[in-house]
Amino acid sequence: MRFALLISYDGTDFSGFQIQPDCRTVQGELERAAEEALGVRAKICGSGRTDAGVHARGQVCHFDAETNIPAKKIKDCFNRFLPPDLRVLKSIRAPEGFDCTRSAKRKTYCYTFYCSETEQPLLRRFCARVSGKPDLSAMREAARLLEGEHDFKAFCAAGSSVKTSVRTVYSVRVDSETVGTAEVFRISVCGSGFLYNMVRIIAGELIAVGCGKREGITAAFTSGRRGCLAKTMPACGLVMENIEYEVPLFGTEEI
Amino acid sequence: MRFALLISYDGTDFSGFQIQPDCRTVQGELERAAEEALGVRAKICGSGRTDAGVHARGQVCHFDAETNIPAKKIKDCFNRFLPPDLRVLKSIRAPEGFDCTRSAKRKTYCYTFYCSETEQPLLRRFCARVSGKPDLSAMREAARLLEGEHDFKAFCAAGSSVKTSVRTVYSVRVDSETVGTAEVFRISVCGSGFLYNMVRIIAGELIAVGCGKREGITAAFTSGRRGCLAKTMPACGLVMENIEYEVPLFGTEEI
Repeated sequence: MRFALLISYDGTDFSGFQIQPDCRTVQGELERAAEEALGVRAKICGSGRTDAGVHARGQVCHFDAETNIPAKKIKDCFNRFLPPDLRVLKSIRAPEGFDCTRSAKRKTYCYTFYCSETEQPLLRRFCARVSGKPDLSAMREAARLLEGEHDFKAFCAAGSSVKTSVRTVYSVRVDSETVGTAEVFRISVCGSGFLYNMVRIIAGELIAVGCGKREGITAAFTSGRRGCLAKTMPACGLVMENIEYEVPLFGTEEI
Repeated sequence: MRFALLISYDGTDFSGFQIQPDCRTVQGELERAAEEALGVRAKICGSGRTDAGVHARGQVCHFDAETNIPAKKIKDCFNRFLPPDLRVLKSIRAPEGFDCTRSAKRKTYCYTFYCSETEQPLLRRFCARVSGKPDLSAMREAARLLEGEHDFKAFCAAGSSVKTSVRTVYSVRVDSETVGTAEVFRISVCGSGFLYNMVRIIAGELIAVGCGKREGITAAFTSGRRGCLAKTMPACGLVMENIEYEVPLFGTEEI
């Protein structure tokens, strides 16, 4: 039997999703909880292996196990054994042939940052800090260039070994609002899939363009050179928001 | 010379504002930093002594010290010696006769909570969790009753020894928005001053009324009995937003 989980975590104190010896990882905590809660040694696959410090509001996982526990109850079984910075929000029996990675159609990530000369204690956990204030319309204009099917080779950290770097970006939205005394910007990117560090590189480039740098996106598409683009933004501002499948997986029932 | 500081802190890991032996407090950290950064042993007064776990976006402090360091630079001196969950956002030379507590004209606190059956890792640090979903218009209707000058004796935790419990509440705003899969509510209360736990008791009563409880505010004003009102909400949802003085203290310059 295959089960699917909708999970959320505060990535601050995790060394990323993927299990590693002697590190506190999301997968490691989930597999430990599965053993303690269900008595099964299951490999828990995630739809995206988020990096150290990256958060998730709607990560999707699957695992195979034989159990009599009703699928809906599995959520509570896990949560009894998980730390408070990691929670299963929903658990279901997975549809026939479901694979949380291969069945994914669209993924949405959100990158959040605030503009301030001083680090702000109430924002620092989930937002990166940027000195100076980027121009929203310049960011939006550059964001348009990213939409569509492109070879995103230049938008990828070194060391990645994917077959193809062609991806489709469905939309890039940039919004800003005032939170207390700070201006907070959100870059929301929806795509068919993302290369390693791709959203953090997109965020870095859009911020740099907003701060007056000439856009390097067009040149990056042509040349495939990482050097055309600005620096990768830090992990703390990134949230995996949701993963969409052919059919809505978890229903609309409230969490 | 008297200086005024605008400070912000994530209250999670503090045992409140007020200094206590063997506890990590905001005042304790500030006084330690003053000694290390400025070489002065100063008592640092806060405009409100927030409880353990309560956050601040715009707390105001003052202290007296003889120093040649320009007032604007004092901020950076402090920040070099403060932990990242506590920051001085602005520092100025205080106006003649200024006292951060006695000179305060209006204070604004914000109480935030989310509605979910499951604790959400990305919300739990700065929002309380509520099961069920309160009715926004019922909360707003009850909020109206609080506005004006009243004896808030019933809205005060036991053990407080204030001269008078008459306070003026200028406004109570209630808003909600969807954050990811959760509904997040914000109760923003602006008043002349607040009794011990007053905002957390107001939040508890408004939430209970929103969930179908008959309002106890009218009876609480008449009888002064704490028992007319619902339970005090937890500290994590409370943020001291800002303190207003006769004249805007810190200017409008960005932080």
